[in-house]
This record gives sequence, structure tokens and C-alpha cells, in this order.
Amino acid sequence: MNGDKNPAFAGFFLLYEKERKKVDKKLIAAFKNRKPASLYEPAAYILEGGGKRLRPLLVLLSAKAVGGKFSKVYNASVAVELLHNFTLVHDDIMDNADKRRGKPTLHKKYDLSTAILVGDILLAIAYEFLLKDCSNPALRDKNSKLTLPAGRQVLSAFTKGLVEVCAGQIMDKDFETMKEVPIQEYMLMIKKKTAALAEMCCTIGALLANGSEKEIKALAGFGRNIGIAFQIQDDLLDIDADENEFGKFVGGDLVEGKKTYLFLKALEKAEGNEKNDLIKLIEDKGTTKDQIPRYKELYIKLGVLDDAKKEIQNFTNRALRSINILKKEEDRMIFCWLADSLLKRIK
Amino acid sequence: MNGDKNPAFAGFFLLYEKERKKVDKKLIAAFKNRKPASLYEPAAYILEGGGKRLRPLLVLLSAKAVGGKFSKVYNASVAVELLHNFTLVHDDIMDNADKRRGKPTLHKKYDLSTAILVGDILLAIAYEFLLKDCSNPALRDKNSKLTLPAGRQVLSAFTKGLVEVCAGQIMDKDFETMKEVPIQEYMLMIKKKTAALAEMCCTIGALLANGSEKEIKALAGFGRNIGIAFQIQDDLLDIDADENEFGKFVGGDLVEGKKTYLFLKALEKAEGNEKNDLIKLIEDKGTTKDQIPRYKELYIKLGVLDDAKKEIQNFTNRALRSINILKKEEDRMIFCWLADSLLKRIK
Repeated sequence: MNGDKNPAFAGFFLLYEKERKKVDKKLIAAFKNRKPASLYEPAAYILEGGGKRLRPLLVLLSAKAVGGKFSKVYNASVAVELLHNFTLVHDDIMDNADKRRGKPTLHKKYDLSTAILVGDILLAIAYEFLLKDCSNPALRDKNSKLTLPAGRQVLSAFTKGLVEVCAGQIMDKDFETMKEVPIQEYMLMIKKKTAALAEMCCTIGALLANGSEKEIKALAGFGRNIGIAFQIQDDLLDIDADENEFGKFVGGDLVEGKKTYLFLKALEKAEGNEKNDLIKLIEDKGTTKDQIPRYKELYIKLGVLDDAKKEIQNFTNRALRSINILKKEEDRMIFCWLADSLLKRIK
Repeated sequence: MNGDKNPAFAGFFLLYEKERKKVDKKLIAAFKNRKPASLYEPAAYILEGGGKRLRPLLVLLSAKAVGGKFSKVYNASVAVELLHNFTLVHDDIMDNADKRRGKPTLHKKYDLSTAILVGDILLAIAYEFLLKDCSNPALRDKNSKLTLPAGRQVLSAFTKGLVEVCAGQIMDKDFETMKEVPIQEYMLMIKKKTAALAEMCCTIGALLANGSEKEIKALAGFGRNIGIAFQIQDDLLDIDADENEFGKFVGGDLVEGKKTYLFLKALEKAEGNEKNDLIKLIEDKGTTKDQIPRYKELYIKLGVLDDAKKEIQNFTNRALRSINILKKEEDRMIFCWLADSLLKRIK
């Protein structure tokens, strides 16, 4: 996320920073003074680790885009970030990751049991927060009657996001031991693992602020497409980032033998010895650091960096087209700023 | 659970069997034809492993006790059993257990990642099912208006149960490395780990069937107290069961060095060498199978088997007093049968 020089985006970064701090404060307060400490202190540790808080931002902006106030969806914003952190904690166990945001992962700092339970409790507290906004008096119809369906839709959308993210994660794990992964399967996986959650954030923000069906659909489309773009960008950054700014070494996915968009696209396009080279990386479950430049060269030669960039732009465009129906220009512009910031991100 | 000879309980066991089969069928159908198979097949495996389905029974009976129909709470019944199985799958990882209901545990049959994700998806699908009953048209007030608060209360009660069960499990894990555990701390742990879930089952059954506040409180009291009795009974059975009927070897808790009600009560009462013997078992993190009879003798000498029996009876009585306010004798009797069956269970 950045401030940018584009005058059309003036003030958006400051607004984001302000709201991010508010969400952070609520996230940390969520675990203060809860007992037992052996559960809630490690939960606070993971939330204090920071993060872009992009998912809460999607909830907030979607509510605003349909005429709602941020104040009506702060609890839902906290809920989606808790759900996201639940996935991070459990994924880190499965990946046996040592670090997260530069700090030891939960299962390394504490132990396996603590990490499993902290993941579980983050999810539980996510529902606790979401329920707060679902009983919000804002959820009334035009005759000021409480509308159960709206609250239920929010909870159903949230639960659907959770189901999808679990399915996406198992697909990702399954890919590790598969020799061949068609690129369509990869796209389905990131739709579930990343895009479904972004779509859910936009949906519940719009639902909680009484958006029309058309508005909800448009915002959900923004979330889904920007989520796909975000994930391919993640794959691209891993090989194409500036190491000084990236925060970790470039090429980690190759070392781990991860089947990223770039790798699968390269495998699809390569022939002869080059294809064998890529197959060997799968068989060896990764490569050594010194081989990274060689693989990057191959990626460039095969044009997969450009393929990735095109796909990112393609899904970003789809995201932006989706929110064209928003009435206020300012609302459309803030989503443009968000998409632009994500396209230009360096880590 | 048993048929019993008591004529007052005639038909209850058959009713239970019939309903258990219905719940089983719905549980298994819940995971049929879902993809990816690598997630949903292991989930079906754990649910096909059987179980007493006591928690669904509490939901069903509580709905009936306030004048509701079973048919309105089947989805909620499925939800509580899914929540229970979520805890079993994750607990088995933490305990590094090999077997569950005589079959290999999920993390042994598959792997750690699958077990974590199956636990997660069981919880997600639990919310999915619960939400189905929360949008039930039965949830209308006297003027036939949809009542958001009732649906919200059900979801809040469920989420509260989930929060409590996570807290109870971490307390249980914490006890493993603690030298001293006061018996009150142990009671608090089982209240969270076992009783909170039983209380939640009764609460949501009664809520979904439009029970009065007084009825909901009474049934919640039954669930909470029978849950505590159930857990102490579990500890007692581990040392006092008939090995032929128990299904696993008697004394497993001593071998594992588990701080059960009996062990902590013995530690409280013992003096001199006997106390040192018990402390040694903690320090050694368990004992060998051949030492089980010696410890059982000590338990008998210190009177802790009787202490446990008294506590079980005490909490069962509290449970039964709680539901005295139910109008129909048949409803009161079926809870008596349930309490009686649990008191007499052999495994």
C-alpha cells in the first residue's frame, strides 16, 4: 500500500492508515484480559505481528460504497481479519514454516497444541465479532422491522468463505505431491484459497450496509477478481521482487519446489531439456539457492513473467469493471486506488 | 445407553435408537459428493466411526421438552455433533492418540495437515447446518414476525460453546506440565471442556423450539450438570470398568499420567509415602501397566472411587432438579432415563 502521486487518489492512503490503526486497536483489544492466558496470549502475539489488514479494508469500503458507515461494520472487519489469521496459523503448521512477518511462527514459539488451539479460537472469536454486527439495528428493512435474512446471509457468506478456504488449502497441499497440475486446477485453488475470502469480505460489507442485490454482486465481483490478481502477483513477486524491499530472499518458491502460477505456466510452455529441468525440480522437491537465477532466466525466456503480468492486469481490469455500477465517483476511485496499490506493491 | 428394565423408561431406548440412526444418516449425507475428496472423504471417515450421539440427543430432547418438534432441530443436532467431532480430531492430534473408537485416528491414517483441515471443515459445516435451522420459519414471535434475536441467540450460544471448549482443552494441556492442579481448577476445566458443550446443546434445542426463558435456563442447567457428571464418570470408568466391556484396557489414564478427578483427589488426601508415590507418577509422566492394580488399591484405600461416585450422583441430582419445572411428566421421565443410562454406562 502506498501514498502514490496520482492526485485522483489524494487522501486515500491516509484514510487507509487511519482505518487500519482503528482495526488494529480493536483486534488487539479483542484478546485483552481473556483467560486462560496460555490460549489468549499466543492469540494476541499473532495479531500484534501486523499485516496489511486488506480484508478489513474490503469490508469497510464495500459498506461505504453502498452508502453505509464504517462504524456499522468494524466488528465484521475484525471478524474477517481473525478468519484470515486463523488460516495463517494453521497453514504455517502444515507448511512447517519457521517465520511469519519476520517473527517465529506460533508452533515454533509455543508448540503444536497451542498453535492448533489458537487457530481454533481465532475462528471462534471471529464468529463472536461477526454476530455483534449482525444484531446491529442497521439490519432493518424499510419498515424498520428486524430482517433475519440479512443477518443470516452475512453469516452464510462468512461460513461459505471458511468452507472455501479450507478446500483451497487442501488443494494446495495436494498439489505438493502431484506430478502434474493443470493451470485451471491452480486457478481453482487460488479462487478458493484467496479469492473466496476477498469476495466474502466485500459481500458482507455490502450486506451489512443494506446494499442492493446489484451492488452486492458488483462488489463481490471486485473482491473475487482482485483476490485472484493478488495471488498471481504474490507468485510473481517471489521471483521478480527487489530483494532489498521484499523482506525475504527472492526465489523462495523455487527452493521449496512450490507449484506457482509461474512454474506451472513454464511447465506448460517448456519443451525438451528445459521441460526436463522443471520436472526435475518437482522430483527433487525444490532446488538450491544458487539455481534461482538460472530458473528466472528460463522463466523470462519462456515469457511466463509477462504471462503473469498480463493475468494480473486482466483480473484487475475485471475487478474494476465490476464496480463501474457504483453511483459515486469517489467510491469508484477508492477501489481504483486499492487495485492500483496492489498492482504496484513491492512485497 | 441401554434399554433398562424400569417400566417408567419403556420405549425411550427405542426412541433414542431411532433418532440416533436419523442423525447418523444426516451426518453421513453431509459429506457425500463434496469436493475435494481429499478433504471430505477423511471427514466422512471420522463421522462413520460411530459414537453415542449424546449431544444431538440433548438438542432433540430439549426442543421436545418445550413443545417443539424433532424435525425443526435436526440440522442443529447435526451441527453439535460436528462441533464435537471437530474437538475430537484436533484433540487426538494434540494427544498424539493412535486410535479413536477402535480405528486409527485421522492424523495417523492420513497426515497432520489433513487432520487439522478436517477439524476445521467439520466446524465450518457445523455452522452451515446450524444456520439452516436458524432461518427456520419456526423462529417467529407471537405475531408471526421473524425474530432475529432468537436466531442470534442460537448462534451466540453455539459460538460461546466453541470458545469454552477451546479454553477447556488448553487448560487440560496446561495441566500436563503442572506439578499441582487444585481440584477446583480441574472442575473448571471439565466445565469448559465437556459441560459447556452439553449446556449449549440444551440451550439451542430449547431456543429453536421457542422455549421460555425459564425453560431454557432449566434445560441448560440439566446439560451443564449432566456434563460434569459425565466427565467424572469417564475418569471413574477408566479405572473401575469391566475390561471385557470397556473396549480398551483399564487404567490407561494412570499409564499416561493424566491428572483425572480421581488422581487429583487422591493427591489431595494422601500423605507420606503414598503422596510421594503419586508425585512420582507425575514426575515420571505416567507409570507402567503392572503398577495399575497398586494405584487402584491406593485409590480404594483413600476412598477416592467413592468420592467420585458421590460427585457423579451429586451432579446428576442437580441436573434432575433443574428440569423439575418441565410441565409434562413424559419429558421429565426421558431426562431421568438419560441420566440413569449415563450413570449405569459401562464404557
